[in-house]
Amino acid sequence: MPEYKAPLRDMRFLIDHVFDFHTNYAALGADDASPDMINAILEEGAKFCENVLAPLNRSGDEEGCHFDNGVVTTPTGFKQAFAQYVEGGWHGLAADPVYGGQGLPSSLGLVISEMVGSSNTSWGMYPGLTHGAMSAIHAHGTAEQKETYLSRLTAGQWTGTMCLTEAHCGTDLGIIKTRAVPQADGSYAVTGSKIFISAGEHDMSDNIIHLVLAKLPDAPAGTKGISLFIVPKFLPDTAGEAGERNGVSCGSIEHKMGIKASATCVLNFDGATGYLIGEPNKGLNCMFTMMNHARLGTGMQGLCLGEASFQGAIKYANDRLQMRSLTGAKAPDKAADPIIVHPDVRRMLLTMKAFNEGNRALTYFTAQLLDVAHLSNDAEARLEAEDLLAFLTPICKAFMTDTGLEVTNHGMQVFGGHGFIREWGMEQLVRDCRIAPIYEGTNGIQALDLLGRKVLGSQGKLLRGFTKIVHKFCAANAEHPQLGSFVAQLNELNQQWGELTMKVGMAAMKNPDEVGAASVDYLMYSGYIILGYLWLRMALVAQAQLEAGEGEADYLRGKLATCEFYFKRLLPRTAAHRAAVEAGSDCLMKLPAEVFAL
Amino acid sequence: MPEYKAPLRDMRFLIDHVFDFHTNYAALGADDASPDMINAILEEGAKFCENVLAPLNRSGDEEGCHFDNGVVTTPTGFKQAFAQYVEGGWHGLAADPVYGGQGLPSSLGLVISEMVGSSNTSWGMYPGLTHGAMSAIHAHGTAEQKETYLSRLTAGQWTGTMCLTEAHCGTDLGIIKTRAVPQADGSYAVTGSKIFISAGEHDMSDNIIHLVLAKLPDAPAGTKGISLFIVPKFLPDTAGEAGERNGVSCGSIEHKMGIKASATCVLNFDGATGYLIGEPNKGLNCMFTMMNHARLGTGMQGLCLGEASFQGAIKYANDRLQMRSLTGAKAPDKAADPIIVHPDVRRMLLTMKAFNEGNRALTYFTAQLLDVAHLSNDAEARLEAEDLLAFLTPICKAFMTDTGLEVTNHGMQVFGGHGFIREWGMEQLVRDCRIAPIYEGTNGIQALDLLGRKVLGSQGKLLRGFTKIVHKFCAANAEHPQLGSFVAQLNELNQQWGELTMKVGMAAMKNPDEVGAASVDYLMYSGYIILGYLWLRMALVAQAQLEAGEGEADYLRGKLATCEFYFKRLLPRTAAHRAAVEAGSDCLMKLPAEVFAL
Repeated sequence: MPEYKAPLRDMRFLIDHVFDFHTNYAALGADDASPDMINAILEEGAKFCENVLAPLNRSGDEEGCHFDNGVVTTPTGFKQAFAQYVEGGWHGLAADPVYGGQGLPSSLGLVISEMVGSSNTSWGMYPGLTHGAMSAIHAHGTAEQKETYLSRLTAGQWTGTMCLTEAHCGTDLGIIKTRAVPQADGSYAVTGSKIFISAGEHDMSDNIIHLVLAKLPDAPAGTKGISLFIVPKFLPDTAGEAGERNGVSCGSIEHKMGIKASATCVLNFDGATGYLIGEPNKGLNCMFTMMNHARLGTGMQGLCLGEASFQGAIKYANDRLQMRSLTGAKAPDKAADPIIVHPDVRRMLLTMKAFNEGNRALTYFTAQLLDVAHLSNDAEARLEAEDLLAFLTPICKAFMTDTGLEVTNHGMQVFGGHGFIREWGMEQLVRDCRIAPIYEGTNGIQALDLLGRKVLGSQGKLLRGFTKIVHKFCAANAEHPQLGSFVAQLNELNQQWGELTMKVGMAAMKNPDEVGAASVDYLMYSGYIILGYLWLRMALVAQAQLEAGEGEADYLRGKLATCEFYFKRLLPRTAAHRAAVEAGSDCLMKLPAEVFAL
Repeated sequence: MPEYKAPLRDMRFLIDHVFDFHTNYAALGADDASPDMINAILEEGAKFCENVLAPLNRSGDEEGCHFDNGVVTTPTGFKQAFAQYVEGGWHGLAADPVYGGQGLPSSLGLVISEMVGSSNTSWGMYPGLTHGAMSAIHAHGTAEQKETYLSRLTAGQWTGTMCLTEAHCGTDLGIIKTRAVPQADGSYAVTGSKIFISAGEHDMSDNIIHLVLAKLPDAPAGTKGISLFIVPKFLPDTAGEAGERNGVSCGSIEHKMGIKASATCVLNFDGATGYLIGEPNKGLNCMFTMMNHARLGTGMQGLCLGEASFQGAIKYANDRLQMRSLTGAKAPDKAADPIIVHPDVRRMLLTMKAFNEGNRALTYFTAQLLDVAHLSNDAEARLEAEDLLAFLTPICKAFMTDTGLEVTNHGMQVFGGHGFIREWGMEQLVRDCRIAPIYEGTNGIQALDLLGRKVLGSQGKLLRGFTKIVHKFCAANAEHPQLGSFVAQLNELNQQWGELTMKVGMAAMKNPDEVGAASVDYLMYSGYIILGYLWLRMALVAQAQLEAGEGEADYLRGKLATCEFYFKRLLPRTAAHRAAVEAGSDCLMKLPAEVFAL
């Protein structure tokens, strides 16, 4: 297992210099998040993740979760680690102080989440789902619901889930079969079966609060007839504590390719008592509060596992001796040179580094928008941040998980045959990462959301909200002595992005299938450009610091070299994606379905 | 688990029409391979693989191999299936009749190997390694060695292995530590430890014949001091049958990401009796006879697993109902449309189909060259075939496994969340495929072999041997009414290929690192062009048959549509690979190793 060290240097470079969280926090009135406080959180968070969570990652994968007659036991150490996490104050870090949280900005919560995910993705699912449930209840719950549930969820006494998928539908929630029948006391009797419920049953908390999508008896068909219910495993008693067992049970857990220490449950609701949250038939809107949260979290799993993989690969590439450099021996005193001397090993390592650091920048950029959306008093600034978030969320989810999967595969490849062996831990990172492009809406669904709903659905407004930023950035830095040529490359792509979108939009007006035909390549194309912008932002800061004699020179030179690598070797992938987008839908749709398999 | 059906229709299209195996067989004097015989082999091979091997694939993955104090037991049913395979005559299909084989052309052996690999890749490792050992003994063994070993290996009574890798070296065989000390009786005492030995120990055969790389006491340093030894698990007695146990034992088996039913062994040689095969210090040359065989076989694993994945995905895409087509309901009587109506699902399916059928064509093209190299009386034709084989082998290995991995990942993605669940069998295909880009020389090593040794090492001659074929093909078909535009696209790329190679060659003369910097992208770039050529060859035949009213019209239309898809959506990836090649080595090499991890 690669030993995990939180990449604090890179995190601080982004927090302190590239995005200047401090000024933003001050402007938003988030005074608690002082530089000292941030520093303490980074240091302590790193310690917890490195020392408590990381050592449970391989063992959790090997042991997996246990299922015995409806009871789920998590792998050895998981329950204790959760207790320590709660005890350390990590669970309520970014939660509302009214319900016992520490009220720190969401962006800091995401910084810590990266460390959690890198050290133990499976474990991170349990608090992660709870945070999602908390945000939905916070946004849509009644005062009483918040008092009962939010306080205990924040305290880590109870945990949460989101129950959407059924055996016959995942993407297509309009056809769910779970039913909620109103009862005399104002509650509902919820009946149905849900699958793929992460953290649906486990031994970490006193109670599990399920947020369940179901249909009322008179509900309209489709997605406009879905309501959201709170269905606790144990019904709160009069004191609000976990009381009588509710009619929900775990039927089995899945045997999966990865995240094996995360319990993925079949949940059977058998007339279980549920409480409506939000308005009837508006459940999907409420659930989207969770899902947008979850989509950013899922996107980050690509970064988390990519970072863990990079740390393993870089160490191995420096340790493993194999062959001589083509330009002459670099370690003549040893039997062979460390493989990092070989250009193709460097290609893999730099690809990993470029995606990881670029994806981290994208996460922080997005996190800062979350802060503005949550905390700003300026309605216009909030609206602008929300628009950018709406645009960026599907890209964060899909681009970061697809590139994360590429990164973890490179990390495994660097290890050669040893990468395929379980004890080295590199293949686990690939398996754990492989779910990320699938769940929380497949990357194909994210791409439809981006191109169909967000970009074309806003007549291009949401895209222009971003390209405008890039355009201004390029104009301001066009004459940069070292980075000007990359600025020009970005500027050209930024312009092409708008033109390509226009072309697809025109085609889509005649034929809606053009959207689906273009969407995934369009999303990846967009992601590469966005990362190009963020890489240049980092490079500009690095160049300025180097010239001013500030910062750590080697680290900064690494940034600049990685930026150059990104522009020369990764950004040109946009050409292939653009060509695929421009190919249109005809060559996909002309073949009758029954001919495919011939 | 997706149910496997051998793709006989596509196989016959290639055998009968695109490559016309029959005329080639007749010219090579391979009279036994009559059309009737080929047909019988296809039909019976399909039955065996579908009915015997495929049902053991999931169970083999779940059960894995058992290790108990040096004894390895394969999963339930594996041993019996091997007996049936031998009994059915499959094992000796393409083996020399002098030693009990049926002497059919190698190409037919590869056709059957595809079926084996698609139905059960892990199981296929056991006969696969044996075939490799047979080819090395056939090429380099003495008459006595052939008599003793080859006859029993051909009969399936014994099986074989190749023992190269040690814990400290895989790629860099020049630094192996295993030693062979000459004994008074002309044998050698072999001592050392080998790892990652597929089929190194198991319960399928009476004896296991290890082909072991080791160093003689006075051997020169590096790869020029390696010799090859036959080290049987049981020493042949005077009658040539398995006798006394030799000093080789299995220390453990690996726990791996995939191909779990294939025993990957640590083998300890403790003064084991070995017999030199071939000349002293020329062992690597002998081993390359096996490795070239194995590299084609490994490349084909990408096709095999891709085909299995496609069969699962296409069925699921027709069965699974989810969402409505953007152009209006296609199955209005059902709750939703089958997901094959969605353009993005089709994008994944067509990508799978295009790579699989293209990779199958590449396999058959290569297989035909193997036949010529093995069987032709015309020395010039043999030499030409060998040159083309040398050029194509690393591309088959690396391009087919990288694209195979992409294909199996698409297949899993088509299944959504269900793809991540083991019982569906789609994730196993990804895991089983993931080793293929690593073993038998990583794809990075293949790329160095292609660009450094084959292309630049021959001053471009081996490349020109292929581009000449493409050039002639394009010239002959430039005016094709339906396919002319694709011919032009291919012709342009073919020309660009030569120019790009020249550019890299010039740069490499100044700086050898340019080879390693360009190699992987150069290999993928080359693979896409080669598949473009093969797709057009298939499309030309399909178009001609359609116009002549021959063949199965729907199948042929599928070919044409997939060709179009390939040219419009996959071939443009060459642009990204070209840009990466042109980026040169500087952006990879400028960063000092110690700065990477900062």
